[in-house]
Amino acid sequence: MQKNLYSSYSRVRKFILTRQPALLSILEWLLLSIVIAICVGSACAFFLISLEYATDYRNAHEWLIYLLPFAGILLGYVFFRWGKEIAPGNNLVISNIHKPKKILPFRLAPFILGGTVFTHLFGGSAGREGTAIQMSAAISDQLTRVFKLSKYNRQVILISGMSAGFGAVFGTPLAGAIFGLEVYHMGKIKYNAIFPAFASSFMADYVTRLYGVSHSHYILGFVPHIDLQGLLITILAGICFGLASLGFIKLTSSYSKLSSKYIKRAYMRPFFGGLLILLIAGLLGTTKYLGLGLPTIAESFTVQQAPYVFFFKLLLTAITLGAGFKGGEVTPLFFIGAALGSALSLFLPLPVGLLAAMGFVAVFSGASNTPLASSIMAIELFGIACSPYVAIACIVAYLISGHHGIYSSQVIGETKIATKIRETGRTLGEV
Amino acid sequence: MQKNLYSSYSRVRKFILTRQPALLSILEWLLLSIVIAICVGSACAFFLISLEYATDYRNAHEWLIYLLPFAGILLGYVFFRWGKEIAPGNNLVISNIHKPKKILPFRLAPFILGGTVFTHLFGGSAGREGTAIQMSAAISDQLTRVFKLSKYNRQVILISGMSAGFGAVFGTPLAGAIFGLEVYHMGKIKYNAIFPAFASSFMADYVTRLYGVSHSHYILGFVPHIDLQGLLITILAGICFGLASLGFIKLTSSYSKLSSKYIKRAYMRPFFGGLLILLIAGLLGTTKYLGLGLPTIAESFTVQQAPYVFFFKLLLTAITLGAGFKGGEVTPLFFIGAALGSALSLFLPLPVGLLAAMGFVAVFSGASNTPLASSIMAIELFGIACSPYVAIACIVAYLISGHHGIYSSQVIGETKIATKIRETGRTLGEV
Repeated sequence: MQKNLYSSYSRVRKFILTRQPALLSILEWLLLSIVIAICVGSACAFFLISLEYATDYRNAHEWLIYLLPFAGILLGYVFFRWGKEIAPGNNLVISNIHKPKKILPFRLAPFILGGTVFTHLFGGSAGREGTAIQMSAAISDQLTRVFKLSKYNRQVILISGMSAGFGAVFGTPLAGAIFGLEVYHMGKIKYNAIFPAFASSFMADYVTRLYGVSHSHYILGFVPHIDLQGLLITILAGICFGLASLGFIKLTSSYSKLSSKYIKRAYMRPFFGGLLILLIAGLLGTTKYLGLGLPTIAESFTVQQAPYVFFFKLLLTAITLGAGFKGGEVTPLFFIGAALGSALSLFLPLPVGLLAAMGFVAVFSGASNTPLASSIMAIELFGIACSPYVAIACIVAYLISGHHGIYSSQVIGETKIATKIRETGRTLGEV
Repeated sequence: MQKNLYSSYSRVRKFILTRQPALLSILEWLLLSIVIAICVGSACAFFLISLEYATDYRNAHEWLIYLLPFAGILLGYVFFRWGKEIAPGNNLVISNIHKPKKILPFRLAPFILGGTVFTHLFGGSAGREGTAIQMSAAISDQLTRVFKLSKYNRQVILISGMSAGFGAVFGTPLAGAIFGLEVYHMGKIKYNAIFPAFASSFMADYVTRLYGVSHSHYILGFVPHIDLQGLLITILAGICFGLASLGFIKLTSSYSKLSSKYIKRAYMRPFFGGLLILLIAGLLGTTKYLGLGLPTIAESFTVQQAPYVFFFKLLLTAITLGAGFKGGEVTPLFFIGAALGSALSLFLPLPVGLLAAMGFVAVFSGASNTPLASSIMAIELFGIACSPYVAIACIVAYLISGHHGIYSSQVIGETKIATKIRETGRTLGEV
């Protein structure tokens, strides 16, 4: 009976394959996308809810931040003891897309989720997208085993997992889908995973919202029609955002190198990082740079921020992540960009909300080399009216950051600078 | 004095080139983009205004359509006598991006503009984007001569010209920019021209609007949140739209081949095409399928169209363009898609406006192999709420149309179908 069923399926499959091969591929990937969406959407909902609890709990018990160095030791030890293999994080996922090695271990998911919530509970300055991406890719990659997928199809699974994770965690499924397709190369997009990336991102976002999770809203205010003056100002702002991306990339990697050089025991690095963060936060006399910093991001859209706000967030995030705490770079990059854009409204004649929105996505674009996903994200979050400004700002920041980025295993698909064309095909870590 | 100035510029240039090479490239391309935008934006405004006059004049003097066959002879003769070299139209532009030959002749611009307005004056069923793209690319390519640009930079100029033309003629600059980057390959986007494509598209649209040109508005109505059922319906609709794209591609090329085979004199082909169009329109007893058909497109969003409406537009456009009349394919594809989507609302439980919007962009996506530009266009025209539906519909239609398309010189950058991977790197015309 089962054999008969299978042979009928084979015959139907063969018929469709010759007449309309895309149809079968769509149906097969639809099923896989739904499975990915249910798993990833649920995981992201659980992550976002946990993160909110952790943040609320810390805000209610501010003394927790004094424990940050000790939380660092514990986190460092756990990852040192059981997590060495999964330490490369996002880069592990991206490098597996380019050069498939063994299937991502499932334990990457609970480890990174736990590590991130733990980091936030004690006030580390980190984000969410790294967690969402790694967790989602690790979960999705288990399908490779279950369905015995080929190398090519595993690549598609990993991309779709990243898309779904990014889309669900920020509530921006269109940007999520494009992010997954865009992030593993710098300077080009391939459409090999286009259908499952979109389908799993939209469905994962739907699943996450079913759990009652809601996402931040930002008030953009008035957006003027772009004209030549607007274009010039946007380019200027984009240059500032690109330099901030570059500063973030350099500072994080420098701190990480220094920390590895002078602190031999890996699990002690988060301890010293935690101490340094406490010291700086103490000197500044504020906790606004700790955790995700969502309130300050929201404030940047309506209240002009002081010119140093973006810098301290940049510094504290570089230390948090460079020291080995867990989480992503993206929400801090949103903070840095929105605060910088907000501060730029002192010099540049554009509305504060618009400049904050431009910075929000452009610093991320420059640091991650994903100008299309960043622009689309702004449209999903702030509406279509800001599209000329955000797109130009994202593209300029992307160009300014050069062949640098927060994902060192990203492969250069198309050079940004004509004189560096020979670097094409190498990873950012190699150049 | 002039020499001194030049040597100071050289020194500054060298300094920036070593410290921040992207900066100089941004500034140089900004200037070129502004020049492109002014020329292309003005040309598109002139084209759109002329087209409106021609359409209004024909509507006021319906007997003009009886002259269509004779207009065909004249058009055929003019292009046969002076325009052989520029006959490949869009394909001439795309193939020059891949294999740069000599600079596009400037006369391509007035020829295609005149030919299109002439076609519309007598009721041919054609579009606008082909005209906008060819006109804009031909104008922009003159900068190659003026600034003595390298082959690499000429590629960027042609892409930016296409982006600007597409963005300005439809009033959708974001889609225009992405279209220019997306259209010359099937299945991949390269970022080599990303800054000038966006800058010239946004500024060209701005310039066109300065002339007082306005664009069509469509009423989408209510858009439900997407869920699993919505996804499945969207995929079904996408399959229908993809088959319509395929039908259009096949019918146009079949008619063109038949016409070339049986009518030896090239300039007589539009005559017979015109006769056939007159005959069909006469039998149907309506002129709604002639010209751009904007009123029917708008109507599709609110009134369910009969299931044959899309087919007759498909037929008449295939004859018009296959016979050698001038214009683009895109506005007819909007018509075909919107009417088909509107008709599908009889069977599929989604709002008529939403289905029309999905068809509007998805049939275009399948025919031109530009799913991202098509999805973004829908967001610019109809708002962000419809994004999951339009994106999935555009992607499914893109996959269903296989390695076929209206632009035969498009190069396959990434296969749609795993079994056809060996076709990568060849043009659609070759496979």
